[in-house]
Amino acid sequence: MANAIVGQSGGPTSVINSSLAGVLQACEMRGADRVYGMLHGIQGLLEEKVCDLSERMKSFLNIELLKRTPSSYLGSCRYRLPAPEEDEAVFEKLFKILKKLDIRWFFYIGGNDSMDTINKLARYGERVGSEIRFMGVPKTIDNDLMLTDHTPGFGSAAKYIGVVMKEVIRDATVYGTKYVTLVEIMGRNAGWLTASAALARGEDCEGVDLICLPELPFHEDRFLAKVERMQKERESVVIAVSEGIRLPDGRFVCELSNDARSVDAFGHINLTGTARYLSNLVARNLPTKTRAVELSILQRCAGHLTSRTDITEAYQVGGAAAKAAFEGETAKMVALKRLSNDPYQCTTELVNINDVANFEKKVPVEWINEERTDMKPEFLAYARPLIQAELTPIFINGLTQHIVE
Amino acid sequence: MANAIVGQSGGPTSVINSSLAGVLQACEMRGADRVYGMLHGIQGLLEEKVCDLSERMKSFLNIELLKRTPSSYLGSCRYRLPAPEEDEAVFEKLFKILKKLDIRWFFYIGGNDSMDTINKLARYGERVGSEIRFMGVPKTIDNDLMLTDHTPGFGSAAKYIGVVMKEVIRDATVYGTKYVTLVEIMGRNAGWLTASAALARGEDCEGVDLICLPELPFHEDRFLAKVERMQKERESVVIAVSEGIRLPDGRFVCELSNDARSVDAFGHINLTGTARYLSNLVARNLPTKTRAVELSILQRCAGHLTSRTDITEAYQVGGAAAKAAFEGETAKMVALKRLSNDPYQCTTELVNINDVANFEKKVPVEWINEERTDMKPEFLAYARPLIQAELTPIFINGLTQHIVE
Repeated sequence: MANAIVGQSGGPTSVINSSLAGVLQACEMRGADRVYGMLHGIQGLLEEKVCDLSERMKSFLNIELLKRTPSSYLGSCRYRLPAPEEDEAVFEKLFKILKKLDIRWFFYIGGNDSMDTINKLARYGERVGSEIRFMGVPKTIDNDLMLTDHTPGFGSAAKYIGVVMKEVIRDATVYGTKYVTLVEIMGRNAGWLTASAALARGEDCEGVDLICLPELPFHEDRFLAKVERMQKERESVVIAVSEGIRLPDGRFVCELSNDARSVDAFGHINLTGTARYLSNLVARNLPTKTRAVELSILQRCAGHLTSRTDITEAYQVGGAAAKAAFEGETAKMVALKRLSNDPYQCTTELVNINDVANFEKKVPVEWINEERTDMKPEFLAYARPLIQAELTPIFINGLTQHIVE
Repeated sequence: MANAIVGQSGGPTSVINSSLAGVLQACEMRGADRVYGMLHGIQGLLEEKVCDLSERMKSFLNIELLKRTPSSYLGSCRYRLPAPEEDEAVFEKLFKILKKLDIRWFFYIGGNDSMDTINKLARYGERVGSEIRFMGVPKTIDNDLMLTDHTPGFGSAAKYIGVVMKEVIRDATVYGTKYVTLVEIMGRNAGWLTASAALARGEDCEGVDLICLPELPFHEDRFLAKVERMQKERESVVIAVSEGIRLPDGRFVCELSNDARSVDAFGHINLTGTARYLSNLVARNLPTKTRAVELSILQRCAGHLTSRTDITEAYQVGGAAAKAAFEGETAKMVALKRLSNDPYQCTTELVNINDVANFEKKVPVEWINEERTDMKPEFLAYARPLIQAELTPIFINGLTQHIVE
């Protein structure tokens, strides 16, 4: 008799529940007696808030609805464990709870910070000779995890951004008047999602005119000069800008705006207002109307528009994590390994959690064009396969159906 | 030999091009030699900027792509004609251009302001004994046109809002912490779209907690009291708020924020920042995190998520306008007339343009509940049929395909 437990952590994505389904079904198939879910991640577990997933997800229809339900089904948290060498109390408590639940396999679906959690748990587990296997399942729309070709969640967010940018570009040209539209896209330090705006260009769309990534310092004067030059060629200029662009002195551009800011438990500043600040900057300096559009949380919870490639891979990394844990692996994260681009083929492998936790993978600066306005074909070749195909939403009474809790 | 001409005006919608397809195909079937399109509406026509739609839309695939392409294919304008009794020059110029193009049937797809244009053109036409038939084709996401049960464009925007609110509600609960999410929805004076947030509630969604419409004066103190009371029952409170809510003294709430504002050619203030202002207001007064989400132009250009009912009706009003014009009608708008709710049945009829132009239809206050927090079942019975069924987007290479211009 032994059980598995799985939690979700960090910012939600539209496919994070596919990984949950993958872990659940693979654990059941491999003989876990029960699969528990932590409610609100490790923080909920500390308060013994768990649910019996095997019980909740008995029907295949529920699994299909789960895959189509955005945001973390189990709830999430932003909770940073202390180093086990410095503060044992919280680990003692956690391992006592895990023992009570008879847990042998522990899965945590998340990004950098969640891999840090797995790392610390595995370290403590090793020290006290625990038999529990700790596995990380990658998830983040930001695509900033090391040692994996890409992260589940990125493909769907990139597809959403591509689709929406095409629509925004159409909308922005409608009056045939001078207009600068600034679209703010998530990504604190890594510009993968903002770069995905480059996907919009095609035979039916001229594409965005300018892409501003956090990988490069932002110069207001050069930016204004570029916009002015561009608007001489076309009335409507559409710009994709990362929420995390910084001035050469290291300050976030959004810090220049007046809005109140707050800091989360990991010390991250809540970034917002970058597009609005730039929109005002352009309006003050150039003879044009401007508009700021924030894709905001819509880009990470758009369950109605996901990439089937992404959702399938999200499921696969969950299953691969279960397989590895049942085979005795621990302190590992499942990574995606691209075998080829054309045809696109991808498999999973295991990487040491220690090499992933707390690192960030950025967009290679070589993938940005010389004029610093657009992405090179290398980026498109990388991102395009990840947005392919769709998972048809289930519409009931006019709206997309999610799982009933 | 006689030709038709069609233009699009005002804010775009995701189905306005279906009406264009409806006008085009019905005119061709009824024997128009050519169907011209005005580029950027009446303003473009004044500069003789037209295209040959019959030539451009030769294939049925093009028609299908046109229906799936958001924003005004022909471009739009916000141009107010003078009263023909006061300034004849512009009318003389327009009618000369129309004569040169051998136009007998004139169609204008738009909202209140566009119906004003049709009204003035028809008035002038009558005075000078013109044979040109002038027909208005209704279009607006705002659903604020008089004498029509609803307007094409509203159903798809309402469906988008219903789907997105369900996703936002899921996202907002993820951390299980106190959170107030304010979602700003379009609608300057009429709250139809904001009211549509009520559609989100269902067996799989608890729905939004508070709906603030422009039909009722907004009291900051009562609002804060409601939010505080609601947050005692649940951590995550999601509020749908119209961009156009006003204080009891008549000022827009967004005027209280610091952002620069501008006024368009019709004297409309560009409303934005309402959710952000309220988000800051709540954060200053209550112990909770807050977030402002603006649906912005995304709600009017989401061609990837339209209502088939809406898109079909948009096509039908275009066809009905052509039929009426060919039968000699003029100075009319095609209206939608609901025959029954269950099963939903709707037909078209003609109404005098004079009774539509420049009026605004608001949400009946009787459809708002007594606590002023939610919509009554009467509203849901009205709106639910309009969001039914989907028009499958055509995905190519991972993104929705639009018509190539």
